[in-house]
Amino acid sequence: MTEIPCYGRFEQQFQSENLSANPFDTAFKAIFQKDNRKITAHGFYDGDNTFKLRFMPDSPGEWTYQTFSELPALNGHSGSFTCTKSDNHGVARVRGRHFAYADGTPLYPLGTTCYAWVHQPESLRRQTLESLKNTPGFKKIRMCVFPKHYDFNQNEPEIYPFSGNPKNGFDFTQPNPKFYALLENCIAELGEIGVEADIILFHAYDCWGFSTMDEDDNHRYLRYIAARLAAFPNVWWSLANEYDLLPHLTEQSWENFAKILQEVDYSEHLMSIHNCRGFYNHSRPWISHCSIQRQDVYKTAEHTNEWIDQYNKPATLDEIGYEGDIHWGWGNLTAEELVRRAWECFVRGGYAGHGETYTHPNDILWWSKGGILHGESPKRWNFLMQICEESGGIDYLAERSPWDVPVGGIEGKLYIAYFGFNRPKYRHFHNEHPYLGKSNLPEGSYKVEIIDTWNMKITDCGVKRREELLVELPARQYMAVRFTRLTELN
Amino acid sequence: MTEIPCYGRFEQQFQSENLSANPFDTAFKAIFQKDNRKITAHGFYDGDNTFKLRFMPDSPGEWTYQTFSELPALNGHSGSFTCTKSDNHGVARVRGRHFAYADGTPLYPLGTTCYAWVHQPESLRRQTLESLKNTPGFKKIRMCVFPKHYDFNQNEPEIYPFSGNPKNGFDFTQPNPKFYALLENCIAELGEIGVEADIILFHAYDCWGFSTMDEDDNHRYLRYIAARLAAFPNVWWSLANEYDLLPHLTEQSWENFAKILQEVDYSEHLMSIHNCRGFYNHSRPWISHCSIQRQDVYKTAEHTNEWIDQYNKPATLDEIGYEGDIHWGWGNLTAEELVRRAWECFVRGGYAGHGETYTHPNDILWWSKGGILHGESPKRWNFLMQICEESGGIDYLAERSPWDVPVGGIEGKLYIAYFGFNRPKYRHFHNEHPYLGKSNLPEGSYKVEIIDTWNMKITDCGVKRREELLVELPARQYMAVRFTRLTELN
Repeated sequence: MTEIPCYGRFEQQFQSENLSANPFDTAFKAIFQKDNRKITAHGFYDGDNTFKLRFMPDSPGEWTYQTFSELPALNGHSGSFTCTKSDNHGVARVRGRHFAYADGTPLYPLGTTCYAWVHQPESLRRQTLESLKNTPGFKKIRMCVFPKHYDFNQNEPEIYPFSGNPKNGFDFTQPNPKFYALLENCIAELGEIGVEADIILFHAYDCWGFSTMDEDDNHRYLRYIAARLAAFPNVWWSLANEYDLLPHLTEQSWENFAKILQEVDYSEHLMSIHNCRGFYNHSRPWISHCSIQRQDVYKTAEHTNEWIDQYNKPATLDEIGYEGDIHWGWGNLTAEELVRRAWECFVRGGYAGHGETYTHPNDILWWSKGGILHGESPKRWNFLMQICEESGGIDYLAERSPWDVPVGGIEGKLYIAYFGFNRPKYRHFHNEHPYLGKSNLPEGSYKVEIIDTWNMKITDCGVKRREELLVELPARQYMAVRFTRLTELN
Repeated sequence: MTEIPCYGRFEQQFQSENLSANPFDTAFKAIFQKDNRKITAHGFYDGDNTFKLRFMPDSPGEWTYQTFSELPALNGHSGSFTCTKSDNHGVARVRGRHFAYADGTPLYPLGTTCYAWVHQPESLRRQTLESLKNTPGFKKIRMCVFPKHYDFNQNEPEIYPFSGNPKNGFDFTQPNPKFYALLENCIAELGEIGVEADIILFHAYDCWGFSTMDEDDNHRYLRYIAARLAAFPNVWWSLANEYDLLPHLTEQSWENFAKILQEVDYSEHLMSIHNCRGFYNHSRPWISHCSIQRQDVYKTAEHTNEWIDQYNKPATLDEIGYEGDIHWGWGNLTAEELVRRAWECFVRGGYAGHGETYTHPNDILWWSKGGILHGESPKRWNFLMQICEESGGIDYLAERSPWDVPVGGIEGKLYIAYFGFNRPKYRHFHNEHPYLGKSNLPEGSYKVEIIDTWNMKITDCGVKRREELLVELPARQYMAVRFTRLTELN
């Protein structure tokens, strides 16, 4: 019997001649069953009279399936396969206010953004993947289905998501299976290097008409992509980049879109919607996590904990500005400032997205096209990932945070204070100082480490009792102090 | 006849033996008259059976005076003097949303803070004055009447503002004339080097009881200091540093204090009250200008224009944090960050106060004790003063400010855009760019200069028509661009 590893992909194809109506509208689904559990997966038309049915099993054992379709050639097929145990971690899930893979392995979705990397030539895509592979601090990438038309993004893609071309126009009723094959290949290659694909379904930076399709075409598109990508473990759904720049799409539009994805995507991938200005109502139950663009020029990641509290959901800060030197204020930050924002986000319980926008003679800016990383911040993302892996997901500890030094951690166990642009020569963390009462730590002994977040060095300061927690610091910016409570010494 | 230069000080002394009641409560005033204008000045007891009467004339010509007192020895004296023209600029006044001396000369009150410099030994006071003299960017200094008890401030002053000593206690009914002579000497020396003395009348950092005197003692103290200092041109009244840290003083207390100062101080010196957390109601008519401590760790000077708009008064940002390395978050900023805040304040129409808090082996921190300046920001205050003098007072130009680059200036004439921590390689300022509409400048030609606020260099980029205003920048932080409109070329 066919063997499919857990979180691997089962795929079966079916031929059907004489397609009169739009084959992309053909109702075609299958019920997959293991023991008493039944899951509906949707098939899709892949061009050339071929339909495909895919399924990603999430538990080992014997699975059977049966197909249903209005098209006789697709109806009434059945079969089975064995799902075997595997090392695949599975789909990303929310766990409390953090993330983990389906198998329980923690996932720290520090990420990056290459909006249109899929739409670049293959040689550039290979570079992008190589860069990602060499940057373990990037565990998620924001990327668009539709190509991007904007500053530094004037090149046409080689292949489009719909039939047609810019000269003669596009037929939005006809998704282009060849494009989706390319997209899936990109997602699969990301999966091989452990990167989650945060798939942006709509965005406004358009000159082809993809952002202004009618409701029927939008729905067909969403059903189609969900049917294809539900079987990929490393997919996240981002309904939009800057949903509010698409004013013709109403709240009801987005709610309908989410409903379609929920209906078709049996894998229940994470789902969110990203803002330009005001947030979409992140309280909506289909929103698994907050996907946030900063709200202010000066306070960017500093609100992370408030947002997490407000929505009681984990947060990825998917746009806190980019390291670079372009004319846009969001795209000319120093690496220091970008990394500062990432740490502010981290100690406040969230996960920050990187981006890079250095001017380039051929307009190859990482933020959109990928390629080679030129900046100083990616290696700091790697370092922050190391800290995440050592610490586990940390929460903002409001009661313990003095006003100028946010403190994140795990209550009673671990505390990380981040000084940001402040650069004290020393700091009292014990409870005898009259003005620092709120920063007091629980009694006991602590392993004290100074983390130089910029120079990526950890200095062990030994074990100290709480009453001795006067920490000497190097009077440089971007330092953190980590206190690991040693309960056995209490 | 006696000649007194305009804004100089007339002083007459009177002896009175057999003082039975508290001589500091003696009613003693004089009416000074020139032509039909009458001004009441209050005399004061200066110890050793001596009373003094002072007056600062504000216009040249013949002045006469007549004294009135419950004490016969002080009553019924009269005299006259000639006020001569002088180069003195006179008392600082509000002019629109900015400041000018009484003679119309603009005053840009960029300043600094040495809270307790008056209470330090003479050698240190001399150093402080020398440092101020060499820093023309400091045109105002915040300084307390009462000594300061706080971190790094554990030394007793040589002389106290009231009779008594820490061991035996103080008699708050008896101001100490010798202390006031010292204070006046300090103020006069500041005047000689063109520095305004922002006199802080109350503050909470106290171990002597001066912050918790009763209402009668507070009122006597205020009448006394106002009677003495009304005749000094370079005095500003700051009712409090952090008024809200003195919770026993109610709003009515502060209103009463202001009323007393208004009654006694015929020179109508500028008056304000400085906060720790929430502002005092700066709409009150006796408040001439907003004296502000930052409200947030991250946004400090960025609200300047909002405050100016809210109260329709000029603003001095008297506490935006200090360059230094102490444990307090407000006192361990880099020079870069402090100067950035000063520029944010400037282009938003306000005037920022400097401060320095580097740890010192003898606890001589400029912010409180004065002495020698160790930091990198004072010379940038000098540079900013040069820009002020070249530009005149500028206002925040809200309609012309793109979201990431505040622009201040004089509508139709001068525009200064400040990039802060952003560091673009170029920026469009013309009106053809679709996304920068709000930053458009009026049509015409402009002299374009790049101001490197950190390296203190101005680069002339020549004259350009508005349509050509694509400005190339060095992709470094802390740059500003100044556009001076050349109307003759329109």
